[in-house]
Amino acid sequence: MSDMSTHADAPRSPGRPRSVRADEAIVQATLDLLAEGSTIEALSIEAIAARAGVGKATIYRRWSGKDALLLDALRTLKGTPPQPSGHSIRDDLVLLVGAIGHNIDPRAAKIMPCLVPEVNRSPVHYQLYQSMVEPRRKLMRQVLQRGMRSGELRPDVDIELAMALLSGPMLMQRMLRWQPDLDDRLLPERIVDAVLDGLRVR
Amino acid sequence: MSDMSTHADAPRSPGRPRSVRADEAIVQATLDLLAEGSTIEALSIEAIAARAGVGKATIYRRWSGKDALLLDALRTLKGTPPQPSGHSIRDDLVLLVGAIGHNIDPRAAKIMPCLVPEVNRSPVHYQLYQSMVEPRRKLMRQVLQRGMRSGELRPDVDIELAMALLSGPMLMQRMLRWQPDLDDRLLPERIVDAVLDGLRVR
Repeated sequence: MSDMSTHADAPRSPGRPRSVRADEAIVQATLDLLAEGSTIEALSIEAIAARAGVGKATIYRRWSGKDALLLDALRTLKGTPPQPSGHSIRDDLVLLVGAIGHNIDPRAAKIMPCLVPEVNRSPVHYQLYQSMVEPRRKLMRQVLQRGMRSGELRPDVDIELAMALLSGPMLMQRMLRWQPDLDDRLLPERIVDAVLDGLRVR
Repeated sequence: MSDMSTHADAPRSPGRPRSVRADEAIVQATLDLLAEGSTIEALSIEAIAARAGVGKATIYRRWSGKDALLLDALRTLKGTPPQPSGHSIRDDLVLLVGAIGHNIDPRAAKIMPCLVPEVNRSPVHYQLYQSMVEPRRKLMRQVLQRGMRSGELRPDVDIELAMALLSGPMLMQRMLRWQPDLDDRLLPERIVDAVLDGLRVR
């Protein structure tokens, strides 16, 4: 359990049940190993158990296997998804686009770019990646559906395409700094306004 | 030079000058090593020379160093950029968006996703990546400028942002299969039409 002390931001208190502290140590150990350069492929339950200072049985009591643990660990990098307020389609989209590629844990900067080759290499890891993004994708889908119902958005909007239009530029920029001249701070609202309005003269 | 025989699509003829054949062998050796899992970091002029069956001096006679060689090698993965015909803004954008993330060399599927972590790790590799994409970005910038001059596009279009809107969704899809339900074949025209028209009712 000694590894937990290296994470100042991990919530822990001496009064919490031992099993909760063990779960946290296991998740932190998983993220530490990934941030230190372990591939998902190479990561083993043995190594995670050793790093967290627990037995393998403790991990298997809580998670069915490596992929389930990885999904939980990777989701903690991103924190809780933002909750759209429901007042304005535009503002809700700005909120959700701003959360794309945004992580609350500094280890994400080491881990997330390295997922790209792994996601391409293995169907299992592709599924893991999809499970990671789907809850956030669902929030955006709901906002777009609301906009179509209210008549603010065109009735023929392809929602899956619209999500790609809103998410792709932000993710490229956060992941690859694709366009070095774009000002990142205002980017979510600039992307949303441009996608809503279109480039063509009206 | 024996490695060249493994690339059926590499242009070679017995009548070509020895120096051209050596250049090709060097570029092919570089791509082979990357496709086999070498990181850009780990790749050495020594290893490339050995693989290509040439001396290091032969490489330095043609390229100033590893980065210049890498840039040439990575550019051959993508082939020649498509040339917009200049008749229609929309069709020219569809052509250029269709070329994003498209590679003519099968080794690209192994190499390109692995560049993401490297680009994030090193300013030199980030520069390499920017040099690789800039010629293609320039073609798209010119089409958008033409559209603004002709009055087809809004006069207040932010061209760098517009390029991110057009490129981001395509690259995400080609690199990560971000949205598994999107039909890739028609994607370039669907992206271009949606970005030109916008999601909002007019």
